[in-house]
Amino acid sequence: MNGAESLLRTLVDGGVEVLFTNPGTTELHLVGALDAVPELRGVLALFEGVATGAADGYARIADKPAATLLHLGPGLAYGLTNLHNSRRANSPVVNIVGDHATYHNTFDPPLNSDIAALAGWLRGPVRRPENAAGTGTDAAATLEAAVQAPGQVATVIMPADVSWNDGGMLGEPVMPRSAPTVTEDVITRIADVIRGGEATALIIGGPALREAGLCAASRIAVASGVRVLQELYSNKVERGAGLPAFPRLGFYPDQVFKQLDGVRHVIIAGAKTPVSFFAYPDHPSCLVPQDAQTHALAEVGQDAVDALVRLANLVAPDTAPQVTEPHRSLMPSGPLTLQNWCDVVAMLLPDHAIVIDETVSSGNALAAATAGSARHDVLMQTGGAMGHGMPLAVGAAVAAPDRPVVALEADGCAMYTVTALWTQAREQLNVTTIILNNQAYAILRQEWQYFGSRPPSAGAPDSNPLLDMSNPAIDFVKLAEAFGVPASRASTAEQLAEQFSRALAEPGPHLIDATMAPAA
Amino acid sequence: MNGAESLLRTLVDGGVEVLFTNPGTTELHLVGALDAVPELRGVLALFEGVATGAADGYARIADKPAATLLHLGPGLAYGLTNLHNSRRANSPVVNIVGDHATYHNTFDPPLNSDIAALAGWLRGPVRRPENAAGTGTDAAATLEAAVQAPGQVATVIMPADVSWNDGGMLGEPVMPRSAPTVTEDVITRIADVIRGGEATALIIGGPALREAGLCAASRIAVASGVRVLQELYSNKVERGAGLPAFPRLGFYPDQVFKQLDGVRHVIIAGAKTPVSFFAYPDHPSCLVPQDAQTHALAEVGQDAVDALVRLANLVAPDTAPQVTEPHRSLMPSGPLTLQNWCDVVAMLLPDHAIVIDETVSSGNALAAATAGSARHDVLMQTGGAMGHGMPLAVGAAVAAPDRPVVALEADGCAMYTVTALWTQAREQLNVTTIILNNQAYAILRQEWQYFGSRPPSAGAPDSNPLLDMSNPAIDFVKLAEAFGVPASRASTAEQLAEQFSRALAEPGPHLIDATMAPAA
Repeated sequence: MNGAESLLRTLVDGGVEVLFTNPGTTELHLVGALDAVPELRGVLALFEGVATGAADGYARIADKPAATLLHLGPGLAYGLTNLHNSRRANSPVVNIVGDHATYHNTFDPPLNSDIAALAGWLRGPVRRPENAAGTGTDAAATLEAAVQAPGQVATVIMPADVSWNDGGMLGEPVMPRSAPTVTEDVITRIADVIRGGEATALIIGGPALREAGLCAASRIAVASGVRVLQELYSNKVERGAGLPAFPRLGFYPDQVFKQLDGVRHVIIAGAKTPVSFFAYPDHPSCLVPQDAQTHALAEVGQDAVDALVRLANLVAPDTAPQVTEPHRSLMPSGPLTLQNWCDVVAMLLPDHAIVIDETVSSGNALAAATAGSARHDVLMQTGGAMGHGMPLAVGAAVAAPDRPVVALEADGCAMYTVTALWTQAREQLNVTTIILNNQAYAILRQEWQYFGSRPPSAGAPDSNPLLDMSNPAIDFVKLAEAFGVPASRASTAEQLAEQFSRALAEPGPHLIDATMAPAA
Repeated sequence: MNGAESLLRTLVDGGVEVLFTNPGTTELHLVGALDAVPELRGVLALFEGVATGAADGYARIADKPAATLLHLGPGLAYGLTNLHNSRRANSPVVNIVGDHATYHNTFDPPLNSDIAALAGWLRGPVRRPENAAGTGTDAAATLEAAVQAPGQVATVIMPADVSWNDGGMLGEPVMPRSAPTVTEDVITRIADVIRGGEATALIIGGPALREAGLCAASRIAVASGVRVLQELYSNKVERGAGLPAFPRLGFYPDQVFKQLDGVRHVIIAGAKTPVSFFAYPDHPSCLVPQDAQTHALAEVGQDAVDALVRLANLVAPDTAPQVTEPHRSLMPSGPLTLQNWCDVVAMLLPDHAIVIDETVSSGNALAAATAGSARHDVLMQTGGAMGHGMPLAVGAAVAAPDRPVVALEADGCAMYTVTALWTQAREQLNVTTIILNNQAYAILRQEWQYFGSRPPSAGAPDSNPLLDMSNPAIDFVKLAEAFGVPASRASTAEQLAEQFSRALAEPGPHLIDATMAPAA
């Protein structure tokens, strides 16, 4: 058994089932080792950012660690942005990066670089086996670090000779550790805060956004009047009719101040204290009202669901959660708008769909529209870096081949990792991508106007060429077809409904270019 | 004047004319400042790797520094790979990265990361102005570092509040420093080596691959029998009829050992000592024969052209260089092969074309075929990281709007930065892209077989799905048209010739999908 095989087999023994990769020469022995480790499925991407984003999507849906395989420093560099998003999603990812042979880098060949420095940017641990015999141990330690609550990106750098040399040994089995529970003391202290009756907000995030956490939070809200809010960008949210639904924290400081107006206590559970996504002149960074106290019921990485349930049992012992009713409305008609595209999706969303939300400024109406849809999971872009959505869809569909995946993509976002469509076609994944096409970086036009007293310039953002994508207009139908994905264009709600229904009914990937009517 | 304007104006005063960008909110005041600094042209890319590769191509052709503008750590991460290639090309690039306001990162918003650590991976200096008043000084220092011989990527991290605050002051004018010349002592010592008459190789690179250096090297070769070789991957090579042409160092150790067989002295001028691109079992990393001595006529960053001319004046005072004759052959016909596509390009290449060579395994016959073509410049992928070529073409065409740019792209390479086509259409750049379409990572199949005694697995590389791009086949014609670039498909030499001629005759970008016949 060579080092490459010992790495992959140790990961498989620890529960890793899929490897998302764009390999090169230094990874060929790892590619070859897949022949000896058929339990591990290799999924090819044509760009590293697709591989890393797919690993994230897989981990979120499978609730299992995913692995990547990237080519030296430059390959890792292409994949880093979506690993940043993974880091912010707390997804368990074993990030494998091939390197030159141990003795080769001292000669500084063209692809040589400080891989450990790059991987260290992700703040997870970085290991580098020195020989085949030690590879299993390093693989097991990396996997163990990746799956440690709340989950992280952990990297193993694999020199080519360590891969090709014989003498590989398997690592010790990895024991997943569950998230630590919070002490009874914390629960009773926060119960006292709630019983005190002062205006209180409860901000929930991470695993607390699944059914058990949502129901516990709802019970607390119903019994005590606490305002429950959902963190802005989440790893995974369970939504739909029959589940409690809470408003998300706003993107802008003014929105959050309105949401937290009058609050004297902010309780966080599985979420971070709210901060402004960007800084703006004359606006604070921390969005907790100055006269409010912050209380951590469960920090990120602690068992927030358990904490919420125990808190609910104290302050709402006999209270049932309040759940959303099924959506009932008429199918919209007419030219596509920022509202009616959401209504179409909401009405047609199939049961147990996985929704990828990279809608940016086009998706403001989405959450309200889909609250009463069929039950579904939502995966969001978590780290603020565009190009996350289409790769997330790849990974989610690999993890759950029987569930429909609906990727909602702002047109600008779609351009960073567009070859995800090719992997969708290659693997015949059940992904329907809807491109929200406004031919602009509309979010930047919106941001420009938010700078109020210090605008970026006297010019109008709508006429700034660097915020415009209309010249030339991208033909998303041809783009999808180029990668083997059937595609169509919709400019009315009726067309979107018809095309979306059809795409959902057929196996394999589809793309719909939803061209928005110009704002009146 | 705000900080943003002081940054851009200082760069303009130092000779920067173009800014390649994919901006976000933290860069909006820099985008806005372009209104006040109209001498600086902003060129929009839909992906950061296009912006950074374009900056490299611009710098190589314009012989001027280029600037980028990227969005925080994740935007820099997407752009890093081509900055790595730039670093290996020694291209002068001022890499501007926006960041959150100085006071904001302590709250760890989603896009926060250690930008300096990422930029430091490129090994160039990194500056971060603390206020608007200091921005000009930091901008000037960054530009000065970028243009210092041999050229490098230098980064300035620009916090949003430093951009939007007033009080910006211009930096001191930047004084470009020319490359230091080598001492007379070195020249005479190496002249003595050559006069000694032992078998000697002269390896030239960097600026020595332009006319003056090539002619001096040729004079030395003609007078003394020294074997001249060109480094494997170069920033820019001047080629064509009327210029001396030398073989490139081989990619594989065995090729280089053959090229250097029997040599007792290896002289380097503007190049690095040859090393194996990758390591292979039982092959050395350093490719200089064990019984040969290495002599540095000019290290990278020293004035290699001056050194070669002085050396030629000593050892070949009355010798004229040997130049290539114009190419004369018949237009090939029949299905496209790895030889005849090169012959078609060689025959039709217009005068003063800029050729981008990202052909990988499809371009082995290119250099020989084009040695006698019309005079042209060749830009190569320098750092071994794929996805460099199409962005290089963008930058080259921006730098030289009157010169035809011919981008020769392996199909696998084209997939990392394919939105470069959109920028080509938007700016109506005179770029003709020829996709060398073999539906595979053919280089990896070739590499697999090079592992000889330690193959990656018992399986055949041709049947390994992770090295295959044929399922699904990419429709490059639709892909180009999706981004607004007219395109056609050629599967015979006649079709390629006809389509290439037509593309060259029409303004604006074109793409030809050159589909190779399967190997017999």
